Amino acid sequence: MTDAAKNLSIVLEGVHQVKFEDRPIPELRDSHDVLVNVKFTGICGSDVHYWEHGSIGQFVVKDPMVLGHESSGVISEVGSAVTGLKVGDRVAMEPGIPCRRCEPCKDGKYNLCEKMAFAATPPYDGTLAKYYVLPEDFCYKLPENIDLQEAAVMEPLSVAVHIVKQANVSPGQSVVVFGAGPVGLLCGNVARAFGASKIIAVDIQKGRLEFAKTYTATAVFEPGKAPAMDNARRIIEENNLGSGADVVIDASGAEPSVHTGIHVLRPGGTYVQGGMGRSEMTFPIMAACTKELNIKGSFRYGSGDYKLAVGLVASGKVNVKELITGVVKFENAEQAFREVRAGEGIKTLIAGIDA
Amino acid sequence: MTDAAKNLSIVLEGVHQVKFEDRPIPELRDSHDVLVNVKFTGICGSDVHYWEHGSIGQFVVKDPMVLGHESSGVISEVGSAVTGLKVGDRVAMEPGIPCRRCEPCKDGKYNLCEKMAFAATPPYDGTLAKYYVLPEDFCYKLPENIDLQEAAVMEPLSVAVHIVKQANVSPGQSVVVFGAGPVGLLCGNVARAFGASKIIAVDIQKGRLEFAKTYTATAVFEPGKAPAMDNARRIIEENNLGSGADVVIDASGAEPSVHTGIHVLRPGGTYVQGGMGRSEMTFPIMAACTKELNIKGSFRYGSGDYKLAVGLVASGKVNVKELITGVVKFENAEQAFREVRAGEGIKTLIAGIDA
Amino acid sequence: MTDAAKNLSIVLEGVHQVKFEDRPIPELRDSHDVLVNVKFTGICGSDVHYWEHGSIGQFVVKDPMVLGHESSGVISEVGSAVTGLKVGDRVAMEPGIPCRRCEPCKDGKYNLCEKMAFAATPPYDGTLAKYYVLPEDFCYKLPENIDLQEAAVMEPLSVAVHIVKQANVSPGQSVVVFGAGPVGLLCGNVARAFGASKIIAVDIQKGRLEFAKTYTATAVFEPGKAPAMDNARRIIEENNLGSGADVVIDASGAEPSVHTGIHVLRPGGTYVQGGMGRSEMTFPIMAACTKELNIKGSFRYGSGDYKLAVGLVASGKVNVKELITGVVKFENAEQAFREVRAGEGIKTLIAGIDA
Amino acid sequence: MTDAAKNLSIVLEGVHQVKFEDRPIPELRDSHDVLVNVKFTGICGSDVHYWEHGSIGQFVVKDPMVLGHESSGVISEVGSAVTGLKVGDRVAMEPGIPCRRCEPCKDGKYNLCEKMAFAATPPYDGTLAKYYVLPEDFCYKLPENIDLQEAAVMEPLSVAVHIVKQANVSPGQSVVVFGAGPVGLLCGNVARAFGASKIIAVDIQKGRLEFAKTYTATAVFEPGKAPAMDNARRIIEENNLGSGADVVIDASGAEPSVHTGIHVLRPGGTYVQGGMGRSEMTFPIMAACTKELNIKGSFRYGSGDYKLAVGLVASGKVNVKELITGVVKFENAEQAFREVRAGEGIKTLIAGIDA
Repeated sequence: MTDAAKNLSIVLEGVHQVKFEDRPIPELRDSHDVLVNVKFTGICGSDVHYWEHGSIGQFVVKDPMVLGHESSGVISEVGSAVTGLKVGDRVAMEPGIPCRRCEPCKDGKYNLCEKMAFAATPPYDGTLAKYYVLPEDFCYKLPENIDLQEAAVMEPLSVAVHIVKQANVSPGQSVVVFGAGPVGLLCGNVARAFGASKIIAVDIQKGRLEFAKTYTATAVFEPGKAPAMDNARRIIEENNLGSGADVVIDASGAEPSVHTGIHVLRPGGTYVQGGMGRSEMTFPIMAACTKELNIKGSFRYGSGDYKLAVGLVASGKVNVKELITGVVKFENAEQAFREVRAGEGIKTLIAGIDA
Repeated sequence: MTDAAKNLSIVLEGVHQVKFEDRPIPELRDSHDVLVNVKFTGICGSDVHYWEHGSIGQFVVKDPMVLGHESSGVISEVGSAVTGLKVGDRVAMEPGIPCRRCEPCKDGKYNLCEKMAFAATPPYDGTLAKYYVLPEDFCYKLPENIDLQEAAVMEPLSVAVHIVKQANVSPGQSVVVFGAGPVGLLCGNVARAFGASKIIAVDIQKGRLEFAKTYTATAVFEPGKAPAMDNARRIIEENNLGSGADVVIDASGAEPSVHTGIHVLRPGGTYVQGGMGRSEMTFPIMAACTKELNIKGSFRYGSGDYKLAVGLVASGKVNVKELITGVVKFENAEQAFREVRAGEGIKTLIAGIDA
Repeated sequence: MTDAAKNLSIVLEGVHQVKFEDRPIPELRDSHDVLVNVKFTGICGSDVHYWEHGSIGQFVVKDPMVLGHESSGVISEVGSAVTGLKVGDRVAMEPGIPCRRCEPCKDGKYNLCEKMAFAATPPYDGTLAKYYVLPEDFCYKLPENIDLQEAAVMEPLSVAVHIVKQANVSPGQSVVVFGAGPVGLLCGNVARAFGASKIIAVDIQKGRLEFAKTYTATAVFEPGKAPAMDNARRIIEENNLGSGADVVIDASGAEPSVHTGIHVLRPGGTYVQGGMGRSEMTFPIMAACTKELNIKGSFRYGSGDYKLAVGLVASGKVNVKELITGVVKFENAEQAFREVRAGEGIKTLIAGIDA
Repeated sequence: MTDAAKNLSIVLEGVHQVKFEDRPIPELRDSHDVLVNVKFTGICGSDVHYWEHGSIGQFVVKDPMVLGHESSGVISEVGSAVTGLKVGDRVAMEPGIPCRRCEPCKDGKYNLCEKMAFAATPPYDGTLAKYYVLPEDFCYKLPENIDLQEAAVMEPLSVAVHIVKQANVSPGQSVVVFGAGPVGLLCGNVARAFGASKIIAVDIQKGRLEFAKTYTATAVFEPGKAPAMDNARRIIEENNLGSGADVVIDASGAEPSVHTGIHVLRPGGTYVQGGMGRSEMTFPIMAACTKELNIKGSFRYGSGDYKLAVGLVASGKVNVKELITGVVKFENAEQAFREVRAGEGIKTLIAGIDA
């Protein structure tokens, strides 16, 4: 890697084809924008999925696209209307910019904006570059006790915050989280910060459950090949959940999890689908109907989520440091993709070109 | 039928085995109870299902059980603590009595009470008898402009009220209702009373759609054999729903309806499962997730639903008269079951033994 | 008035000092803006208050300011990014533009934006001019059955819509509205469209109550000099409100109304303060505490309110035509201010210079 | 005190007239009731108020009345339908029994029941006796790590839980609590358990603020004689609250607190009136209106509050032990009343006759 590079970027050109390309430094689009020098970027399953398959659902990478969207950095330029940030400020970067004008945007649900420009979602370039431009209000200044590596984990933490807010978790509740990957683990931790008294982590990998147990879960459950109804009954009995759990969060996207989740809920309980999986699957719809469940999707994050994520880490209520299991150099990004695909570690970061 | 009968009752003894039995007049259980002389009872699909199959899901008729739960009547005796009703008052009868002591009951969700004693759900006898005992607060005194036949329709209307409340329908919204049987029709009418500006009825039977059109729907849709996604797109286009409908109510329980319903919703929209169908079916779960839908079950009715049902009819906002397509004599009840099973008419009532 | 005027504007220069000034036609600020040729403008109490006093609370008119903010018009120019409007479209004009970037804006509460640029609130010019610039998304295209005079009343109607939404009015509820001026009358009408079954208008002017009665109230009440508690009791008794009204809306700002309103509510009821009055007054705070009332302010209007206002008029659920009691020529604006101050008529409009 | 006493009770016969009377052991009213042998009872300001004045507002002690309502005890008899408790179980006692049949009861708001039978509120006897009868569902079985002294504090803790739930406190919020008596202190602690990140205690007594600081507040504020607006500004500045606090809880009932509370809130913030004071006071109503505040009363406690209170103490999130500053013998009750009136200590308990 040459120091002469102005804005070295990690560009996906096709399946398994990643190129390091020196692009022009992007310009501020308006007076509210800032230029961020990217310092750390977490690798997300979606980055790896684009690298492996060139598409996710309806989103197809047609033109070369910079990857990455879980980033932190340092402000290197500010627009004339910027009042809350100055050059040198350390920030967590929220990577999706809504139109601010449509009904969802004005209703307080900008994550549902149909014109959202989201980093590393075609056709929008991502943050795995030296520089990235954002509006001031999508950069969150870090308090002194959060470092730039932790700040890169604010993105999946914001996903978890949004899920837990969708789930309306309140003090004293029991929460069963299916899937103990980064988002599932963070959901458990955030649910605890929201006052949940029982957090039961469910996964089919023993190693993940062991981590979950030391991390934040009050109990873990490894489903056997038993029917969903049986696994649900065991979870209820082992954890004294009475007529069922108050809240279920699915961060797995797996059909057996979804079924067990519906059956483990008490009448009137809340289920949030956070994990992505097959677009259709069988679903125990009559149990959902007669128990009057509240079932919600959760998509990315919205108003207040990044701010709360930063606050939860700053106050020590959520620990993201423990999840960072590796940091690779910018030039070794592809190796990192391979490791993530292989399921190694929990959260791998790619250091910025001059981090 | 003999006039000498004290409390002639329609008792289901086995599949297709209905007997007229003269039972003792029931006694008040406590000082808050009243004795109602039943005047009209609507036939519900569930009554016919028990008659045909002897069970509904987990509920199995083991001992002889009186059928019927959609009833109106006249007060014939009141307990010593009753203050709001007197002998001779005409009432709509809410047929499920909760325990009043469990968490759902005290939380304002008595329809989720696990000790609910619901008429004509085993092992509890129904209302197709001369007399039925209810607590005072589950009888709703009729205003003068509601007759006893209309009052028997308060039960399915309360089901519809509960569904529309679960759907949180608000003025100006677009509501697509799948299924144009009695409950689906009433949901459309209640949604209109809640201020919905577009009510689109969907059904596979032309005749039902024609009725829906004159009854309350602002538009109707007859789905062809096209994929759910295509039917959804057509409903959106034909009705100028922009990015989709605000609310979907499924009163059909049919898998193609469920799929079309999920796809027809806008991001952030609300789906309520009101209709009963197969316990499991394929479900477009990722669309629900990425659109952040609110999906809710709706089960029977709860606090305030019957009262609102009576108010909606009294004020002329909901018309139940049009739905009553037949009234049969008490002794011809089984013929009525056959007609309902054959899909004849919309709502058939059985007159009380001395109505 | 000369036809040669480019952008004749009604400018307040000091107390009782209004000048007609020909200003340059304003330019679009960005590609999402449109230029509107203003056709009708309703006179609001606030316009008259500025004209009389030169200030409202903390808002002081220091520099000459164009008055007016209740307007309709015709699109005469569109920015390059505008997709939903074209030259010639008839629109209702929402007159306050939020920053779109602060927390309230992103939370769905742009009416609470501290950087709001609101027409005819110092230092922002109002709409009593030939031309006014707005972003596309703050113009609401009129359906054919709404004329430009009615469209000017969308502003106070949106105020009423916002109040009724704050009050969470739902079908079957009883609503007592204090104050039968334009906003109070519209609140009653909107509450009815939201399904309220009893709408009781309270005012100290017989004439207003007579209008309210024919307009939309189901009952009216003229408070005597009795204590608030007594008036509350009489309202409850005369209208069979049981343990009290479900909802109270104060559109008067008067202390006796506030007291009566708190006392007329049932335990758990909702009170919305819509009317402006003295900044401090005595308040029955313990009644509010022990009845666990929900008391809310309502300030201007926010996401979805204008759209719903247009929809309510288009569907015939709200009638604004009846409220328009006078239309004066642009050059007679000051006479109109005098009439409004004198309490003549309900809503007076000023025609645009070329309406 | 004689061991021969069957059910020695502390009876208020008139102002400052307390008598120890041996009454018959009360009988179970129905099969769901239990008989509790009372072990500890906290003294509440209301007990002292009745002792001092013979009345509180509309509630006047006409006949001799047993005092006390903050109690814990041991089950000594169970009705035939009781399933969750057995003789010997240690319980916290919820001292108000609603009718279970009215609209508020069925709506999930039994604290608003107009037929509520509340201990030591005329004409209902209180818990300062050897025995007290309660329905099973109003007794909360204690986990092993909660002792019977702590259990007596569940009552004021439930008051605080209800207030904080009314305030809708959510993680990351700033909460200003006016009044640092037992309820105010507990509100701060519960708000912290709900995830509030800033808890600012305000009181005019330095000693209380010092306790609050070590107990749970993140900051304290001692208002000078400055105007409310100035104190509000100082609280905002000293605590970096930006445009104001998210939540204000008044547990003081004092007019200057109420004013400062309204002014310290951000637009859209929430204010809960928990403290009792004068029935009317001046109130900054226009600030409440233009900031669109949510103002709520809070009255006693309702569904789920006691259960959550027990859970919060069991999990260590709330500490009630620190608040217990004295335990007096049953026969010294009146001395305890004098101490509480004199403002000595934080929470004084009266031991049961055989505790």
